Amino acid sequence: MAEKQRLLSGMRPTGRLHLGHYNVIKEWVRLCDLYDSYWFTADWHAITTQFDNTDSIRANRREIVIDWLSAGLDPEKCHIFHQSDIKEHAELHLLFSMITPLSWLERVPTYKGQLEAFKEKGKDIATYGFLGYPLLMAADILMYRPSGVPVGEDQAPHVEFCRELLRRFHHLYNCQVFPEPQPVFNHIEILPGTDNRKMSKSYGNFILLSEKPEDVKTKVWSMVTDATRIRKTDPGHPDVCAVYAYQGFFNKAEQPQICADCKAGAIGCGQCKKRLTECINDFLEPMRERRAKYEAQPALLDEIIDAGNTAARKTARETMGMVREAMKI
Amino acid sequence: MAEKQRLLSGMRPTGRLHLGHYNVIKEWVRLCDLYDSYWFTADWHAITTQFDNTDSIRANRREIVIDWLSAGLDPEKCHIFHQSDIKEHAELHLLFSMITPLSWLERVPTYKGQLEAFKEKGKDIATYGFLGYPLLMAADILMYRPSGVPVGEDQAPHVEFCRELLRRFHHLYNCQVFPEPQPVFNHIEILPGTDNRKMSKSYGNFILLSEKPEDVKTKVWSMVTDATRIRKTDPGHPDVCAVYAYQGFFNKAEQPQICADCKAGAIGCGQCKKRLTECINDFLEPMRERRAKYEAQPALLDEIIDAGNTAARKTARETMGMVREAMKI
Repeated sequence: MAEKQRLLSGMRPTGRLHLGHYNVIKEWVRLCDLYDSYWFTADWHAITTQFDNTDSIRANRREIVIDWLSAGLDPEKCHIFHQSDIKEHAELHLLFSMITPLSWLERVPTYKGQLEAFKEKGKDIATYGFLGYPLLMAADILMYRPSGVPVGEDQAPHVEFCRELLRRFHHLYNCQVFPEPQPVFNHIEILPGTDNRKMSKSYGNFILLSEKPEDVKTKVWSMVTDATRIRKTDPGHPDVCAVYAYQGFFNKAEQPQICADCKAGAIGCGQCKKRLTECINDFLEPMRERRAKYEAQPALLDEIIDAGNTAARKTARETMGMVREAMKI
Repeated sequence: MAEKQRLLSGMRPTGRLHLGHYNVIKEWVRLCDLYDSYWFTADWHAITTQFDNTDSIRANRREIVIDWLSAGLDPEKCHIFHQSDIKEHAELHLLFSMITPLSWLERVPTYKGQLEAFKEKGKDIATYGFLGYPLLMAADILMYRPSGVPVGEDQAPHVEFCRELLRRFHHLYNCQVFPEPQPVFNHIEILPGTDNRKMSKSYGNFILLSEKPEDVKTKVWSMVTDATRIRKTDPGHPDVCAVYAYQGFFNKAEQPQICADCKAGAIGCGQCKKRLTECINDFLEPMRERRAKYEAQPALLDEIIDAGNTAARKTARETMGMVREAMKI
């Protein structure tokens, strides 16, 4: 793997992943074959917005790794680690803090917006750490000197922040430690929530990757369909129906026929949902098997994370050596 | 030492210490007998104001330890360590950053003043790290769970910041990890500079603890005396004379006689300075001997710092265990 370019991305461990996350992991799985890949749980980042409620972070970071593995991430082909297990991230964050103009952080596009959004929910997260989270993210990324960072398009400013910071570092210390990482956009299809809005924890409109078969059934049964269709024989409008959108993901082969039948009033919503339930459960079944394996053998999961931590720590120590040398400290 | 209460203080390694620092070290020497004492070079702090010129930090932190040892600090009676060798400081700083309201840091009395002072010198130090330096200081202090922190009175707000922060930590995580540290004020006599202003690097009016005998002579010779006294027989005014103030420090026994002789025009400034030069050199001689020992044996200094680092790391790891447990991370 030494000759491959390096890639890194992470997720905050804020709870179990749902179907909306699946395509991101699928993309990670694909990238593992092309790059020396590092995937991490951003557990320190999780504290920024839930510093008053940290009880779940420890369990969540384990759950999210199980979700990744269940969804197909192959631990033989990548390094999976926990951010807070690699203390070097805190050191690099501290060193970067000394050279980062305060104004850069105050101007990060998401900063004020997120402060406001939390304030509306009655929560003040205007901490020093929250202001600094793009800097911690820059330390997370640059630590592994990656050529690319798989992110959603909304995260592009953070990768740009990284590049500005490394240019400043190189200029101040007259060195070339870090390659400039490029955002690798996840070109993924977006699966809507069961109510046709964006799939989101806060809307409660999600189906988990770890959902049980009977819960999949219940959730599919409650999905929003064409509200104007009263009887089965009424012609349906698949384009406004969440169930139909899901057929496109989980039952691609039958989707055209379902579309025609729905428009012709030849298939009822109940029948359509029954078929979707089967397809989603078929889709989740291999994940359930992998999940069962890891849940039954906690030591196996420990081994995977230990190996990932070891690899991450090795690279992190190399980077810190280069950084300290450049700064002459 | 385990039953003694703990004490901690540090200095930024920004250059060699001068006579104005001696009384602080003398106080540290005294405290070593009463407390389990930790003294550290705040090398990460040095970066906040000289991030664009870090070349000297590595040498300076070594020099300052030699200064401490020369001035009488006994490595058998305390722990001497480098801040940046104990990576846990960076981790605790990061964790504290998540719970510290931004407004607390913006309101630290010295923050705006120092920004302005540097701006007048044409240097912009408004970095994220500079805003956060009281937080890093709080991590430095609380890491060792000390009961006291020897500081100058101008530093009292930083110890108060520490106490506010630990109360917030205890409240948020429903725990009692840290005792409340009290400032232990250095009740020391202030030695003026050779020009009667405050002794300071930037005024160039200092005599180093490591000054050579001939340089002591040159510096004493240039000292400011009573400007109204032209001839030896003119009556002098000891209260406006820096040399006289120094006699009080380095030649206490003869000072009353010198005072009387000066007022009576019975002793000339040259004779007075000659005597002071002898006394300062007598005072510095044991320091020079100790310094020569450490300079001749770099391995001896390494051993002292290794031992100090080991002791500091042990305590730091205990603290981080308690912190992570309290935060459930």
